[in-house]
Amino acid sequence: MGKVVFYGAISLDGYLADQEDDLAWLFETDTGVQTTYEAFFETIDATFMGRKTYQEAKKLLSGAFLYPEKENYVCSTTLIEPLPDATIIKEDPVTFLRAHQDQNIWVVGGGQLLQPILEADLIDEWYIQIAPVLLGAGKRLFKEGSYLSRLQLADTTQMGQLMELHYIRAAN
Amino acid sequence: MGKVVFYGAISLDGYLADQEDDLAWLFETDTGVQTTYEAFFETIDATFMGRKTYQEAKKLLSGAFLYPEKENYVCSTTLIEPLPDATIIKEDPVTFLRAHQDQNIWVVGGGQLLQPILEADLIDEWYIQIAPVLLGAGKRLFKEGSYLSRLQLADTTQMGQLMELHYIRAAN
Repeated sequence: MGKVVFYGAISLDGYLADQEDDLAWLFETDTGVQTTYEAFFETIDATFMGRKTYQEAKKLLSGAFLYPEKENYVCSTTLIEPLPDATIIKEDPVTFLRAHQDQNIWVVGGGQLLQPILEADLIDEWYIQIAPVLLGAGKRLFKEGSYLSRLQLADTTQMGQLMELHYIRAAN
Repeated sequence: MGKVVFYGAISLDGYLADQEDDLAWLFETDTGVQTTYEAFFETIDATFMGRKTYQEAKKLLSGAFLYPEKENYVCSTTLIEPLPDATIIKEDPVTFLRAHQDQNIWVVGGGQLLQPILEADLIDEWYIQIAPVLLGAGKRLFKEGSYLSRLQLADTTQMGQLMELHYIRAAN
């Protein structure tokens, strides 16, 4: 049995990226010398993201292969040509995740991709790094939606000026 | 020289209250035995809030006096009758705060009151307690606005399932 995990950084006011999809505010943040990323990355089998997140990641990689050690899934109803380093998922995110419950899947990015996943209560674990920045506008991690859930704070890790909050599904 | 401080709890998705201005999700959160509240409260001279926050606080107090040890300011252009325990402020929040720089002022609540204060960059210090709850909708602490600022993570305190992040103005 796998799990669905979110891992990612937001501004204190809840944005994953500014209005131009820019992450300069994050890259300018002191993130210390130790990171939880490698240990997290080892635990996952696959990544799952939206088209825009994929394309922004490819820009940052200057076209290099995205996570070659993992299976990469990109949710898109508009992409037609196959991608060199990812499988295009045409079904909705909830159907996809329910059909892949054997894998540990990293949901990369939020907003539109995350909203139906939240509404279906499919995230098992969260690693959210909060950066000490107020952006005022941009792409929110948490779009408004019909969800309501209580989590359990498992632990926290300070990495320079980033504060990571790690939550797991609350026991009912 | 005083300072302007925000102290308050939000859900992980950034809400101060749900759509019905309800705080049950917060009251149901395990907040441990120790709190930073008393020490914080001793440092402030006055509270400053919007009309709705005042009225919600009075409901919770069943009409008892609001913070009798402090000066309480309620920002409102619609209240006409004087309040028993607060001074009504008819000017805009930024003008008010600039005229009261000798006091340590607690800005209670967010949203509409906070937005112009953020845009004028008047908050010197933040104590934000993050509750392990996703609400999906409600009254956001951070409304969208024309602000962009970098803070400095001063320290953090875990109180049961609440994680408090304490930020100060970043040195330029």
